[in-house]
Amino acid sequence: MLPGCPLEVIGVVHTARTTPATTPVQAALNRAEQGTVEIFEAFAQGLSGLEGFDYVWLLTWMPLASGSQEMPAMIQVPFLLRPQGRTMGVFATRGPQRVNPLGLSLVNLLEVSGRTPRAGSPD
Amino acid sequence: MLPGCPLEVIGVVHTARTTPATTPVQAALNRAEQGTVEIFEAFAQGLSGLEGFDYVWLLTWMPLASGSQEMPAMIQVPFLLRPQGRTMGVFATRGPQRVNPLGLSLVNLLEVSGRTPRAGSPD
Repeated sequence: MLPGCPLEVIGVVHTARTTPATTPVQAALNRAEQGTVEIFEAFAQGLSGLEGFDYVWLLTWMPLASGSQEMPAMIQVPFLLRPQGRTMGVFATRGPQRVNPLGLSLVNLLEVSGRTPRAGSPD
Repeated sequence: MLPGCPLEVIGVVHTARTTPATTPVQAALNRAEQGTVEIFEAFAQGLSGLEGFDYVWLLTWMPLASGSQEMPAMIQVPFLLRPQGRTMGVFATRGPQRVNPLGLSLVNLLEVSGRTPRAGSPD
């Protein structure tokens, strides 16, 4: 039996985007937009020195993007392959309907103010 | 109150490395080594089409690397800054003692055989 993986939430991403339907599908289509990351007080000291870096990896939990299904289809038609109707396994796509609704984003760090890093090009 | 993040384990990474003490600290120091990823049967179909890619992102759960502490120090001395004794916040380091023992590895995909992708340069 495998042990569980108790993921600890360290903060919240704030952007102007609140619904998947009106959110651009890729950061590349949306370079001018910015967001902030609010790191909870218990972890605030962990930001020390981050201001010296230009880029930060954000791992995010995005259940809204994943839709309401308990488990997504293992075989999907990726957004950009819809014209051809071509199918791919979920692990060969970047689609939002994933087994784990994890987002992986490399963002441009603009400033760190208190416990709130501000970042450009959020996904 | 924030909802929990119930991470679903999709498989197990197999390498010759079983203890942190004898594992190289960076993939760059260890390019010739290979490993396999065993994807559980329930998710095997999700690998379809993956063989067409050269690189794969692996998100791994590595509690052994994190040590026995419940919560790591927010301020640490990174491995490569030990000579200077310089401190950094945990989120400004790549050190293994993290709030969440998550590994993020870009690996070179060598082949997909059944439900077992084989990859080079594992971290």
